[in-house]
Amino acid sequence: MEKSKGKFVTFEGCDGCGKSTQLKLLSEYLTKNGVPHIFTREPGGGKISEAIREILLNGKNSEMTDECEALLYSASRMQHLADRVIPALSDGKLVICDRYVDSSLAYQAYARGLGEEFIENINQLALTKYAPDTTIFIDLTPSQAFARKQGADENDRLEQAGIAFHERVYDGYQRVAKKYPERVVVVNGNQTPTEIFEQVLRVLKERNCL
Amino acid sequence: MEKSKGKFVTFEGCDGCGKSTQLKLLSEYLTKNGVPHIFTREPGGGKISEAIREILLNGKNSEMTDECEALLYSASRMQHLADRVIPALSDGKLVICDRYVDSSLAYQAYARGLGEEFIENINQLALTKYAPDTTIFIDLTPSQAFARKQGADENDRLEQAGIAFHERVYDGYQRVAKKYPERVVVVNGNQTPTEIFEQVLRVLKERNCL
Repeated sequence: MEKSKGKFVTFEGCDGCGKSTQLKLLSEYLTKNGVPHIFTREPGGGKISEAIREILLNGKNSEMTDECEALLYSASRMQHLADRVIPALSDGKLVICDRYVDSSLAYQAYARGLGEEFIENINQLALTKYAPDTTIFIDLTPSQAFARKQGADENDRLEQAGIAFHERVYDGYQRVAKKYPERVVVVNGNQTPTEIFEQVLRVLKERNCL
Repeated sequence: MEKSKGKFVTFEGCDGCGKSTQLKLLSEYLTKNGVPHIFTREPGGGKISEAIREILLNGKNSEMTDECEALLYSASRMQHLADRVIPALSDGKLVICDRYVDSSLAYQAYARGLGEEFIENINQLALTKYAPDTTIFIDLTPSQAFARKQGADENDRLEQAGIAFHERVYDGYQRVAKKYPERVVVVNGNQTPTEIFEQVLRVLKERNCL
Protein backbone atom coordinates (compact mmCIF):
# COMPACT_ATOMS: atom_id res chain seq x y z
CA MET A 1 0.00 0.00 0.00
CA GLU A 2 1.58 3.24 -1.11
CA LYS A 3 2.28 6.06 1.32
CA SER A 4 0.80 4.48 4.43
CA LYS A 5 2.43 4.06 7.79
CA GLY A 6 0.97 0.64 8.56
CA LYS A 7 1.27 -2.59 6.59
CA PHE A 8 -1.54 -4.29 4.72
CA VAL A 9 -1.47 -8.10 4.75
CA THR A 10 -4.06 -10.37 3.13
CA PHE A 11 -4.64 -14.11 3.52
CA GLU A 12 -5.86 -16.22 0.63
CA GLY A 13 -6.51 -19.86 -0.15
CA CYS A 14 -9.10 -22.41 -1.14
CA ASP A 15 -11.94 -23.31 1.20
CA GLY A 16 -10.65 -25.68 3.84
CA CYS A 17 -6.98 -24.69 3.40
CA GLY A 18 -6.51 -23.88 7.10
CA LYS A 19 -6.68 -20.10 6.73
CA SER A 20 -8.97 -19.60 9.74
CA THR A 21 -6.59 -21.50 12.00
CA GLN A 22 -3.68 -19.34 10.88
CA LEU A 23 -5.65 -16.13 11.39
CA LYS A 24 -6.50 -17.27 14.92
CA LEU A 25 -2.86 -18.07 15.71
CA LEU A 26 -1.78 -14.72 14.28
CA SER A 27 -4.41 -12.87 16.30
CA GLU A 28 -3.14 -14.46 19.51
CA TYR A 29 0.45 -13.68 18.59
CA LEU A 30 -0.19 -10.02 17.76
CA THR A 31 -2.24 -9.43 20.91
CA LYS A 32 0.36 -11.16 23.09
CA ASN A 33 3.16 -9.11 21.56
CA GLY A 34 1.29 -5.81 21.71
CA VAL A 35 1.39 -5.21 17.96
CA PRO A 36 -1.20 -2.53 17.02
CA HIS A 37 -3.42 -4.22 14.47
CA ILE A 38 -6.90 -4.92 13.19
CA PHE A 39 -8.43 -8.02 11.66
CA THR A 40 -11.02 -7.39 9.01
CA ARG A 41 -12.80 -8.91 6.07
CA GLU A 42 -15.04 -7.59 3.34
CA PRO A 43 -17.65 -6.17 3.35
CA GLY A 44 -16.73 -5.24 6.92
CA GLY A 45 -18.31 -2.68 9.08
CA GLY A 46 -19.81 0.31 7.33
CA LYS A 47 -23.48 0.53 6.47
CA ILE A 48 -22.85 1.05 2.75
CA SER A 49 -20.89 -2.19 2.47
CA GLU A 50 -23.59 -3.93 4.48
CA ALA A 51 -26.29 -2.59 2.17
CA ILE A 52 -24.36 -3.89 -0.83
CA ARG A 53 -23.95 -7.23 0.91
CA GLU A 54 -27.70 -7.42 1.43
CA ILE A 55 -28.28 -7.10 -2.31
CA LEU A 56 -25.62 -9.74 -3.01
CA LEU A 57 -27.02 -12.25 -0.53
CA ASN A 58 -30.73 -11.67 -1.15
CA GLY A 59 -32.08 -14.97 -2.47
CA LYS A 60 -34.70 -13.09 -4.48
CA ASN A 61 -31.99 -11.57 -6.66
CA SER A 62 -31.34 -14.77 -8.61
CA GLU A 63 -31.50 -12.92 -11.96
CA MET A 64 -28.39 -10.94 -11.03
CA THR A 65 -25.80 -11.10 -13.80
CA ASP A 66 -22.28 -12.31 -13.00
CA GLU A 67 -20.92 -8.95 -14.13
CA CYS A 68 -23.25 -7.00 -11.84
CA GLU A 69 -22.29 -9.27 -8.94
CA ALA A 70 -18.57 -8.79 -9.56
CA LEU A 71 -19.00 -5.01 -9.74
CA LEU A 72 -20.94 -4.99 -6.48
CA TYR A 73 -18.11 -6.90 -4.81
CA SER A 74 -15.67 -4.38 -6.22
CA ALA A 75 -17.80 -1.44 -5.00
CA SER A 76 -17.98 -2.98 -1.54
CA ARG A 77 -14.21 -3.47 -1.62
CA MET A 78 -13.52 0.22 -2.29
CA GLN A 79 -15.85 1.25 0.52
CA HIS A 80 -14.31 -1.25 2.96
CA LEU A 81 -10.89 0.19 2.13
CA ALA A 82 -12.09 3.71 2.96
CA ASP A 83 -14.07 2.71 6.07
CA ARG A 84 -11.68 0.25 7.71
CA VAL A 85 -8.36 -0.40 6.00
CA ILE A 86 -7.01 3.05 5.15
CA PRO A 87 -7.83 4.66 8.53
CA ALA A 88 -6.06 1.83 10.39
CA LEU A 89 -3.03 2.03 8.09
CA SER A 90 -2.89 5.79 8.62
CA ASP A 91 -2.78 5.10 12.36
CA GLY A 92 0.26 2.92 11.73
CA LYS A 93 -1.56 -0.32 12.44
CA LEU A 94 -0.98 -3.69 10.84
CA VAL A 95 -4.11 -4.56 8.87
CA ILE A 96 -4.84 -8.27 8.38
CA CYS A 97 -7.60 -8.91 5.85
CA ASP A 98 -9.21 -12.32 5.39
CA ARG A 99 -9.51 -12.55 1.57
CA TYR A 100 -9.17 -9.58 -0.78
CA VAL A 101 -8.79 -8.98 -4.51
CA ASP A 102 -7.09 -12.34 -5.20
CA SER A 103 -10.27 -14.12 -4.11
CA SER A 104 -12.12 -12.24 -6.85
CA LEU A 105 -9.50 -13.36 -9.33
CA ALA A 106 -9.49 -17.00 -8.19
CA TYR A 107 -13.25 -17.41 -7.71
CA GLN A 108 -14.79 -14.99 -10.22
CA ALA A 109 -12.24 -14.55 -12.99
CA TYR A 110 -10.97 -18.12 -13.18
CA ALA A 111 -13.39 -20.53 -11.46
CA ARG A 112 -16.59 -18.84 -12.62
CA GLY A 113 -15.12 -17.87 -15.95
CA LEU A 114 -15.64 -14.09 -15.94
CA GLY A 115 -12.12 -13.70 -17.23
CA GLU A 116 -8.96 -12.18 -15.90
CA GLU A 117 -9.24 -8.96 -17.92
CA PHE A 118 -12.71 -8.04 -16.67
CA ILE A 119 -11.97 -8.75 -13.01
CA GLU A 120 -8.58 -7.01 -13.15
CA ASN A 121 -10.15 -3.98 -14.81
CA ILE A 122 -12.87 -3.52 -12.23
CA ASN A 123 -10.38 -4.14 -9.40
CA GLN A 124 -7.49 -2.17 -10.80
CA LEU A 125 -7.12 0.12 -7.79
CA ALA A 126 -7.00 -2.87 -5.43
CA LEU A 127 -4.22 -4.31 -7.57
CA THR A 128 -2.16 -1.12 -7.78
CA LYS A 129 -2.73 1.85 -5.47
CA TYR A 130 -4.37 -0.31 -2.79
CA ALA A 131 -2.40 -3.52 -3.30
CA PRO A 132 -1.45 -5.43 -0.14
CA ASP A 133 2.14 -5.25 1.05
CA THR A 134 2.09 -9.02 1.44
CA THR A 135 -0.41 -11.70 0.50
CA ILE A 136 -0.06 -15.09 2.16
CA PHE A 137 -1.44 -17.84 -0.07
CA ILE A 138 -1.91 -21.04 1.89
CA ASP A 139 -1.30 -23.64 -0.74
CA LEU A 140 -3.45 -26.72 -0.21
CA THR A 141 -5.17 -28.51 -3.08
CA PRO A 142 -8.93 -29.07 -2.82
CA SER A 143 -8.42 -32.84 -2.66
CA GLN A 144 -5.98 -32.43 0.23
CA ALA A 145 -8.44 -30.07 1.94
CA PHE A 146 -11.26 -32.49 1.28
CA ALA A 147 -9.30 -35.40 2.74
CA ARG A 148 -8.63 -33.40 5.90
CA LYS A 149 -12.29 -32.46 6.21
CA GLN A 150 -13.64 -36.02 6.33
CA GLY A 151 -16.74 -36.01 8.48
CA ALA A 152 -17.63 -32.38 7.82
CA ASP A 153 -21.34 -31.67 7.82
CA GLU A 154 -23.40 -31.70 4.67
CA ASN A 155 -23.57 -27.90 4.48
CA ASP A 156 -19.84 -27.81 3.96
CA ARG A 157 -19.00 -25.36 1.18
CA LEU A 158 -16.35 -27.61 -0.30
CA GLU A 159 -18.81 -30.40 -0.96
CA GLN A 160 -21.63 -28.14 -2.09
CA ALA A 161 -19.84 -26.49 -4.96
CA GLY A 162 -18.15 -29.67 -6.12
CA ILE A 163 -14.52 -30.57 -6.34
CA ALA A 164 -14.19 -29.46 -10.00
CA PHE A 165 -15.09 -25.88 -9.09
CA HIS A 166 -12.54 -25.82 -6.29
CA GLU A 167 -9.88 -27.24 -8.59
CA ARG A 168 -10.47 -24.22 -10.83
CA VAL A 169 -10.20 -21.90 -7.82
CA TYR A 170 -6.92 -23.58 -6.92
CA ASP A 171 -5.60 -23.20 -10.48
CA GLY A 172 -6.66 -19.55 -10.29
CA TYR A 173 -4.59 -19.01 -7.16
CA GLN A 174 -1.60 -20.61 -8.86
CA ARG A 175 -1.90 -18.10 -11.68
CA VAL A 176 -2.26 -15.22 -9.23
CA ALA A 177 0.89 -16.33 -7.40
CA LYS A 178 2.83 -16.47 -10.68
CA LYS A 179 1.50 -13.14 -11.89
CA TYR A 180 2.17 -11.15 -8.70
CA PRO A 181 5.33 -12.74 -7.28
CA GLU A 182 6.48 -9.50 -5.65
CA ARG A 183 3.42 -9.54 -3.43
CA VAL A 184 2.13 -13.11 -3.10
CA VAL A 185 4.04 -15.55 -0.90
CA VAL A 186 3.12 -19.21 -1.26
CA VAL A 187 3.09 -21.15 2.00
CA ASN A 188 2.79 -24.94 1.84
CA GLY A 189 -0.51 -25.79 3.54
CA ASN A 190 0.32 -29.47 3.81
CA GLN A 191 2.16 -29.08 7.13
CA THR A 192 1.04 -28.94 10.74
CA PRO A 193 -0.66 -25.68 11.82
CA THR A 194 2.37 -24.83 13.95
CA GLU A 195 4.78 -25.37 11.09
CA ILE A 196 2.65 -23.23 8.78
CA PHE A 197 2.41 -20.50 11.39
CA GLU A 198 6.16 -20.41 11.92
CA GLN A 199 6.57 -19.88 8.20
CA VAL A 200 3.90 -17.16 8.16
CA LEU A 201 5.69 -15.29 10.95
CA ARG A 202 9.04 -15.67 9.21
CA VAL A 203 7.61 -14.30 5.94
CA LEU A 204 5.96 -11.32 7.65
CA LYS A 205 9.16 -10.48 9.50
CA GLU A 206 11.36 -10.83 6.42
CA ARG A 207 9.03 -8.50 4.51
CA ASN A 208 8.99 -5.89 7.30
CA CYS A 209 5.30 -6.39 7.99
CA LEU A 210 6.00 -7.38 11.59
CA MET B 1 -24.02 -3.85 -30.05
CA GLU B 2 -22.53 -7.04 -31.39
CA LYS B 3 -24.72 -9.88 -32.65
CA SER B 4 -28.10 -8.37 -31.88
CA LYS B 5 -31.05 -8.00 -34.20
CA GLY B 6 -32.17 -4.60 -32.93
CA LYS B 7 -30.24 -1.35 -32.74
CA PHE B 8 -29.05 0.33 -29.58
CA VAL B 9 -29.14 4.14 -29.60
CA THR B 10 -28.17 6.40 -26.70
CA PHE B 11 -28.74 10.12 -26.18
CA GLU B 12 -26.23 12.26 -24.35
CA GLY B 13 -25.70 15.91 -23.48
CA CYS B 14 -25.32 18.43 -20.70
CA ASP B 15 -28.24 19.26 -18.44
CA GLY B 16 -30.58 21.61 -20.26
CA CYS B 17 -29.34 20.66 -23.74
CA GLY B 18 -32.83 19.81 -24.99
CA LYS B 19 -32.43 16.04 -24.81
CA SER B 20 -35.85 15.45 -23.24
CA THR B 21 -37.59 17.35 -26.03
CA GLN B 22 -35.82 15.25 -28.65
CA LEU B 23 -36.69 12.01 -26.87
CA LYS B 24 -40.32 13.08 -26.79
CA LEU B 25 -40.32 13.92 -30.52
CA LEU B 26 -38.64 10.61 -31.31
CA SER B 27 -41.15 8.70 -29.21
CA GLU B 28 -44.02 10.26 -31.11
CA TYR B 29 -42.33 9.55 -34.44
CA LEU B 30 -41.60 5.89 -33.67
CA THR B 31 -45.11 5.23 -32.37
CA LYS B 32 -46.69 6.97 -35.36
CA ASN B 33 -44.55 4.98 -37.77
CA GLY B 34 -45.05 1.65 -36.03
CA VAL B 35 -41.36 1.09 -35.32
CA PRO B 36 -40.97 -1.61 -32.63
CA HIS B 37 -38.98 0.09 -29.88
CA ILE B 38 -38.51 0.75 -26.20
CA PHE B 39 -37.41 3.86 -24.33
CA THR B 40 -35.39 3.25 -21.22
CA ARG B 41 -32.91 4.80 -18.84
CA GLU B 42 -30.71 3.46 -16.07
CA PRO B 43 -31.27 2.01 -13.54
CA GLY B 44 -34.54 1.07 -15.22
CA GLY B 45 -36.99 -1.54 -14.18
CA GLY B 46 -35.51 -4.52 -12.39
CA LYS B 47 -35.47 -4.77 -8.61
CA ILE B 48 -31.71 -5.26 -8.41
CA SER B 49 -31.03 -1.99 -10.23
CA GLU B 50 -33.63 -0.30 -8.01
CA ALA B 51 -31.94 -1.66 -4.88
CA ILE B 52 -28.61 -0.30 -6.08
CA ARG B 53 -30.28 3.02 -6.84
CA GLU B 54 -31.61 3.14 -3.29
CA ILE B 55 -28.07 2.86 -1.92
CA LEU B 56 -26.85 5.56 -4.31
CA LEU B 57 -29.61 8.00 -3.47
CA ASN B 58 -29.80 7.39 0.28
CA GLY B 59 -28.87 10.68 1.92
CA LYS B 60 -27.45 8.79 4.91
CA ASN B 61 -24.71 7.35 2.73
CA SER B 62 -22.70 10.57 2.56
CA GLU B 63 -19.46 8.77 3.41
CA MET B 64 -19.65 6.81 0.16
CA THR B 65 -16.39 7.04 -1.77
CA ASP B 66 -16.44 8.28 -5.36
CA GLU B 67 -14.98 4.97 -6.48
CA CYS B 68 -17.70 2.97 -4.73
CA GLU B 69 -20.34 5.20 -6.28
CA ALA B 70 -18.92 4.78 -9.77
CA LEU B 71 -18.77 1.00 -9.36
CA LEU B 72 -22.38 0.91 -8.18
CA TYR B 73 -23.44 2.84 -11.29
CA SER B 74 -21.48 0.39 -13.38
CA ALA B 75 -23.10 -2.61 -11.62
CA SER B 76 -26.53 -1.12 -12.17
CA ARG B 77 -25.65 -0.56 -15.84
CA MET B 78 -24.77 -4.23 -16.40
CA GLN B 79 -28.00 -5.33 -14.76
CA HIS B 80 -30.09 -2.85 -16.77
CA LEU B 81 -28.52 -4.24 -19.93
CA ALA B 82 -29.53 -7.77 -18.98
CA ASP B 83 -32.99 -6.84 -17.73
CA ARG B 84 -34.13 -4.38 -20.38
CA VAL B 85 -31.75 -3.67 -23.24
CA ILE B 86 -30.56 -7.09 -24.42
CA PRO B 87 -34.01 -8.75 -24.36
CA ALA B 88 -35.48 -5.92 -26.47
CA LEU B 89 -32.57 -6.04 -28.92
CA SER B 90 -32.99 -9.80 -29.21
CA ASP B 91 -36.63 -9.18 -30.13
CA GLY B 92 -35.40 -6.95 -32.93
CA LYS B 93 -36.54 -3.74 -31.29
CA LEU B 94 -34.91 -0.34 -31.45
CA VAL B 95 -33.68 0.52 -27.97
CA ILE B 96 -33.43 4.22 -27.11
CA CYS B 97 -31.57 4.85 -23.85
CA ASP B 98 -31.54 8.25 -22.15
CA ARG B 99 -27.88 8.52 -21.03
CA TYR B 100 -25.44 5.60 -20.85
CA VAL B 101 -21.72 5.05 -20.43
CA ASP B 102 -20.73 8.44 -21.90
CA SER B 103 -22.52 10.16 -19.01
CA SER B 104 -20.22 8.29 -16.63
CA LEU B 105 -17.25 9.49 -18.63
CA ALA B 106 -18.42 13.11 -18.85
CA TYR B 107 -19.72 13.46 -15.29
CA GLN B 108 -17.56 11.05 -13.25
CA ALA B 109 -14.29 10.70 -15.14
CA TYR B 110 -13.89 14.28 -16.30
CA ALA B 111 -16.14 16.64 -14.31
CA ARG B 112 -15.68 14.91 -10.95
CA GLY B 113 -12.10 14.01 -11.66
CA LEU B 114 -12.15 10.23 -11.19
CA GLY B 115 -10.11 9.90 -14.34
CA GLU B 116 -10.70 8.40 -17.73
CA GLU B 117 -8.74 5.21 -17.07
CA PHE B 118 -10.69 4.22 -13.96
CA ILE B 119 -14.12 4.91 -15.47
CA GLU B 120 -13.22 3.21 -18.74
CA ASN B 121 -11.89 0.18 -16.91
CA ILE B 122 -14.99 -0.36 -14.83
CA ASN B 123 -17.23 0.26 -17.86
CA GLN B 124 -15.19 -1.65 -20.38
CA LEU B 125 -18.01 -3.97 -21.45
CA ALA B 126 -20.34 -1.02 -22.03
CA LEU B 127 -17.66 0.50 -24.27
CA THR B 128 -16.95 -2.66 -26.26
CA LYS B 129 -19.27 -5.67 -26.24
CA TYR B 130 -22.28 -3.59 -25.21
CA ALA B 131 -21.42 -0.33 -26.98
CA PRO B 132 -24.33 1.55 -28.59
CA ASP B 133 -24.69 1.39 -32.36
CA THR B 134 -25.14 5.15 -32.34
CA THR B 135 -24.82 7.82 -29.68
CA ILE B 136 -26.44 11.19 -30.35
CA PHE B 137 -24.61 13.96 -28.48
CA ILE B 138 -26.69 17.13 -28.42
CA ASP B 139 -24.01 19.76 -28.40
CA LEU B 140 -25.08 22.81 -26.40
CA THR B 141 -22.68 24.63 -24.07
CA PRO B 142 -23.75 25.13 -20.45
CA SER B 143 -23.88 28.91 -20.93
CA GLN B 144 -26.17 28.47 -23.93
CA ALA B 145 -28.32 26.05 -21.93
CA PHE B 146 -28.32 28.42 -18.99
CA ALA B 147 -29.38 31.35 -21.18
CA ARG B 148 -32.29 29.31 -22.53
CA LYS B 149 -33.35 28.30 -19.04
CA GLN B 150 -33.84 31.83 -17.68
CA GLY B 151 -36.58 31.72 -15.08
CA ALA B 152 -36.04 28.09 -14.13
CA ASP B 153 -36.84 27.31 -10.52
CA GLU B 154 -34.22 27.35 -7.83
CA ASN B 155 -33.98 23.55 -7.71
CA ASP B 156 -32.69 23.55 -11.24
CA ARG B 157 -29.75 21.17 -11.51
CA LEU B 158 -27.79 23.49 -13.74
CA GLU B 159 -27.72 26.24 -11.17
CA GLN B 160 -27.19 23.95 -8.19
CA ALA B 161 -23.95 22.40 -9.34
CA GLY B 162 -22.53 25.63 -10.71
CA ILE B 163 -21.57 26.57 -14.21
CA ALA B 164 -17.92 25.53 -13.74
CA PHE B 165 -18.93 21.92 -13.10
CA HIS B 166 -21.10 21.87 -16.20
CA GLU B 167 -18.30 23.35 -18.27
CA ARG B 168 -16.20 20.36 -17.23
CA VAL B 169 -19.03 18.00 -18.19
CA TYR B 170 -19.23 19.71 -21.57
CA ASP B 171 -15.47 19.41 -22.08
CA GLY B 172 -15.81 15.75 -21.13
CA TYR B 173 -18.40 15.18 -23.84
CA GLN B 174 -16.13 16.85 -26.36
CA ARG B 175 -13.39 14.39 -25.47
CA VAL B 176 -15.80 11.46 -25.70
CA ALA B 177 -16.91 12.60 -29.17
CA LYS B 178 -13.29 12.82 -30.33
CA LYS B 179 -12.35 9.47 -28.80
CA TYR B 180 -15.27 7.45 -30.17
CA PRO B 181 -16.00 9.07 -33.56
CA GLU B 182 -17.27 5.82 -35.08
CA ARG B 183 -20.12 5.76 -32.59
CA VAL B 184 -20.79 9.32 -31.35
CA VAL B 185 -22.55 11.76 -33.67
CA VAL B 186 -22.47 15.41 -32.65
CA VAL B 187 -25.69 17.30 -33.32
CA ASN B 188 -25.68 21.08 -32.95
CA GLY B 189 -28.07 21.85 -30.09
CA ASN B 190 -28.22 25.54 -30.90
CA GLN B 191 -31.05 25.14 -33.42
CA THR B 192 -34.83 24.92 -33.11
CA PRO B 193 -36.18 21.62 -31.73
CA THR B 194 -37.59 20.78 -35.16
CA GLU B 195 -34.26 21.39 -36.88
CA ILE B 196 -32.46 19.26 -34.33
CA PHE B 197 -35.00 16.50 -34.69
CA GLU B 198 -34.69 16.46 -38.47
CA GLN B 199 -30.97 15.99 -38.06
CA VAL B 200 -31.46 13.22 -35.48
CA LEU B 201 -33.76 11.35 -37.86
CA ARG B 202 -31.32 11.80 -40.75
CA VAL B 203 -28.44 10.44 -38.65
CA LEU B 204 -30.40 7.43 -37.45
CA LYS B 205 -31.50 6.60 -41.00
CA GLU B 206 -28.01 7.02 -42.45
CA ARG B 207 -26.64 4.71 -39.80
CA ASN B 208 -29.31 2.05 -40.39
CA CYS B 209 -30.79 2.48 -36.94
CA LEU B 210 -34.18 3.43 -38.39
